[in-house]
Amino acid sequence: MYAKGIKSRVRRPSLFSKLTNINDVIESGFFKDGMRIGWSGFTGVGYPKITPNALADYVEKNNLQGKLKFDLYVGASTSAENGMIARRYPYQLGKILRSEINKNHIKFADKHLSEFPLDLVSGYYTLEKKGNVMEKLDVAVVEATAITERGNIIPGASIGATPEIVQTASKIIIEVNTALPSFEGLHDITLGKFAPYKFPNLIQRVDDRVGTTYIPCDPDKIIAIIESKEPDHTLDSEPQDEKSNKIASHILDLFEHEVMMGRLPPQLLPLQSGVGNIANAIIGGLADGPFTDVEVWTEVIQDTFLDFWEHHKLSFASATSVGFSPAGFKRFYEMWNELKDRLVLRSQSVSNSPEIIRRLGVIAMNTPVEFDIYAHANSTHVCGTKMLNGLGGSADFLRNSKLSIIHTPSTRPTKKDPIGISCIVPMCSHIDHTEHDLDILVTEQGLADVRGLAPIERARLIIDKCAHPEYRPILNDYLNLAEKECMKIGAAHEPHMLDRVFKMHLNVLSENNSMRINSW
Amino acid sequence: MYAKGIKSRVRRPSLFSKLTNINDVIESGFFKDGMRIGWSGFTGVGYPKITPNALADYVEKNNLQGKLKFDLYVGASTSAENGMIARRYPYQLGKILRSEINKNHIKFADKHLSEFPLDLVSGYYTLEKKGNVMEKLDVAVVEATAITERGNIIPGASIGATPEIVQTASKIIIEVNTALPSFEGLHDITLGKFAPYKFPNLIQRVDDRVGTTYIPCDPDKIIAIIESKEPDHTLDSEPQDEKSNKIASHILDLFEHEVMMGRLPPQLLPLQSGVGNIANAIIGGLADGPFTDVEVWTEVIQDTFLDFWEHHKLSFASATSVGFSPAGFKRFYEMWNELKDRLVLRSQSVSNSPEIIRRLGVIAMNTPVEFDIYAHANSTHVCGTKMLNGLGGSADFLRNSKLSIIHTPSTRPTKKDPIGISCIVPMCSHIDHTEHDLDILVTEQGLADVRGLAPIERARLIIDKCAHPEYRPILNDYLNLAEKECMKIGAAHEPHMLDRVFKMHLNVLSENNSMRINSW
Repeated sequence: MYAKGIKSRVRRPSLFSKLTNINDVIESGFFKDGMRIGWSGFTGVGYPKITPNALADYVEKNNLQGKLKFDLYVGASTSAENGMIARRYPYQLGKILRSEINKNHIKFADKHLSEFPLDLVSGYYTLEKKGNVMEKLDVAVVEATAITERGNIIPGASIGATPEIVQTASKIIIEVNTALPSFEGLHDITLGKFAPYKFPNLIQRVDDRVGTTYIPCDPDKIIAIIESKEPDHTLDSEPQDEKSNKIASHILDLFEHEVMMGRLPPQLLPLQSGVGNIANAIIGGLADGPFTDVEVWTEVIQDTFLDFWEHHKLSFASATSVGFSPAGFKRFYEMWNELKDRLVLRSQSVSNSPEIIRRLGVIAMNTPVEFDIYAHANSTHVCGTKMLNGLGGSADFLRNSKLSIIHTPSTRPTKKDPIGISCIVPMCSHIDHTEHDLDILVTEQGLADVRGLAPIERARLIIDKCAHPEYRPILNDYLNLAEKECMKIGAAHEPHMLDRVFKMHLNVLSENNSMRINSW
Repeated sequence: MYAKGIKSRVRRPSLFSKLTNINDVIESGFFKDGMRIGWSGFTGVGYPKITPNALADYVEKNNLQGKLKFDLYVGASTSAENGMIARRYPYQLGKILRSEINKNHIKFADKHLSEFPLDLVSGYYTLEKKGNVMEKLDVAVVEATAITERGNIIPGASIGATPEIVQTASKIIIEVNTALPSFEGLHDITLGKFAPYKFPNLIQRVDDRVGTTYIPCDPDKIIAIIESKEPDHTLDSEPQDEKSNKIASHILDLFEHEVMMGRLPPQLLPLQSGVGNIANAIIGGLADGPFTDVEVWTEVIQDTFLDFWEHHKLSFASATSVGFSPAGFKRFYEMWNELKDRLVLRSQSVSNSPEIIRRLGVIAMNTPVEFDIYAHANSTHVCGTKMLNGLGGSADFLRNSKLSIIHTPSTRPTKKDPIGISCIVPMCSHIDHTEHDLDILVTEQGLADVRGLAPIERARLIIDKCAHPEYRPILNDYLNLAEKECMKIGAAHEPHMLDRVFKMHLNVLSENNSMRINSW
């Protein structure tokens, strides 16, 4: 009844009896309204492909919309667009999901990716249950590329929060993906201890291994094993453009300067790099750049890392997920033998651990929605109210890094104005990263190094170096006016005019659809 | 020439030749305009008492105002009110200093207390110097209670950033305070390693010792040793009032609930508590409360801790400073034999270390200026622009704690209205702690546990539980109006009206001098 393929991946024969198909599980009435479900996956890889779609079909076919809804717990950003989600933690991608969150149809609570798994195990999402009850989730639906002799789970291209989700679920459904190779050996998995029983994490180098190559799993909890043949549906890599190349070049210049000044070693310090075209440009620049033996300690590995390895500039990378494009995955599998000893995937509680990020002295680089003249940054809410994707691991890295860098184009287009949005504003409309956390701010216009500067000094430098020339006078006017007003009342440490501070944002929301204002 | 007193404290005879008085040092022209000076001290204890005053007198007597100015680096909050400070890092107390900072006469840059010493050693405050130059400060002026046979420094009632300040200074002036007993044995001092040469900090319990009992010091750097007979001039303890007692009682109820639910062990987890009357009320409540064998991992120890020990409820405390009142210090010295094995003082880079705070699962409690309906908090800037004292260690603790609690009275008086300021506002006018960091918000009105809640759920709970009855309808109106407006454009994850969001703040700055507004 089941192909040889799946039996070779399920290495515990007593589990063969659990091989089934998802429709049988659903028809049996296993899934009940209000259930708490944990899913594997991180940034669009390693998520279950069979169960969510089958559930959505079932809901639609049986007119159960609104009658069969779940609370969903995922490491990060697996998409699900089918009206059966009541709550969702943390981070998300996908147009429909985002729209439902912004209509408040789905309750979305955002959390640092390093903390989400620990909060889950600590019972912070199940406050009505006693904390010592381990079964906080009703079921975990987990993609695997193999199951070991002892019933433990070998994940695929991501780990994320899956170890903690498996640990806290009463029942487990495993989708074994036979369309992917087994990723066995690529993972290093530790299950966090909890205060007051915590120990130091002994990782001291990006390539240290301190855990197991599998996710520990109690085989008695497994209620179904389903074969999946669907690959991860990833997006094509975002092309680098002129602006992202300019930003990358400012950052590479900074690195050379810091090495020259003796504040960075010649091989730099381990790099964290976000996702998107600027990150691609930076890693692309490093792949062709002067630094060798570079190490990476990050969340997600993207396509340009393949060049970084191939050009023998990247010595080792640690992440929680490889998020390649379809073409990138093809190349990755071709390079497998060469790469498998130069890459490790870890739980997100480790990849994003403040303890390790500080110890290794990581250089963090991320793209915000906007930053302000005093060096606060908004990573989550457009115009302060509309959730984009969520915080992700940006704060885990920016707060704890040795050098924290944010980078963005100086402007973005609106429907009416090609430079209608200035990414540098007087005050961020939502703040995820504070002035106490950011060292370096970069746009295609230039780079502001604000280490050691007082707020007004920071503001002058940021406007001068980072703002688009069109917005420079507007922002300078704001700063000068605000300083004058605040000096009058002896309150000018960080000058603002609270009655006008969001005038640029309001103007973009108005029919002008541009932050270019005529006066303050 | 010098009393037996000081010679018994300076245990390295070759250093006797350095015994001098500060006026000779000053008259020799040692202090030059633009010097970078590091001072010992933390929250008003352990600071040098002779040198700053002598310098200020010298400036005044010789009409050098504005011609002899220094950049000042201090662990935290030592006051200096004499017009000779050009820059100042980080944290401060004192009316004149605050006023000068808010007039922008003194450039003040604020930083997490855990990071300040590391940034100093990393050269982030001396960007024009090569990073491998160890002498980043021109001179350190350090109070000691003794100097050892090898020339190492025994501090007094605080450590703060003194180890790193001593490490990075070219020259060292030591004030040996013979009015205090020697604090030898009370300290545990480690000098941080820096990436890429960092190791795990192996502290796993609040009473673990991993360092030395002295600050390592190269005796050749010592240019002068001065006797000081001035005690620390500390303030009287802030009395608990009805509001702070109510707040404390809400928090103690929470602890009992969490123990009952199995999310906290019976002895709780190590506590961090800020300074001020609410902190005093909480610790006072614990001193009389049901929990025994409680541990403390905090920044500053205050008077009420003495009861906590005396009632045999507090088993061990770790801090970077003991900031008792004059009466408290008297009691402390009387209890010395009993307390010396139940207390350790550490560097602020350790007391505030994210690594240790997370590992120990600290319960953090701090008072902000204000918090908002979505659970962001402002700890630094009144009405967004006026610096109060600085960030201190509040974010070190709130971000990394197992349970993060902020507490404040629901209102504060203005000149015109006894409840003119609501400490709960639609949006904080400055944000130091984000919604991703805070679990529990408390006022005398009640306690909001926002773990796991989406923004609008949080807002309803916070208004309902924490806001003063007079402000509850005002804040609810804001939330309802904002939700309606944002729903229209599908941007209602965290509803706001950016054109009116600071209307309450503006009204308090106006002649009404109250946040009680009639309409939005």
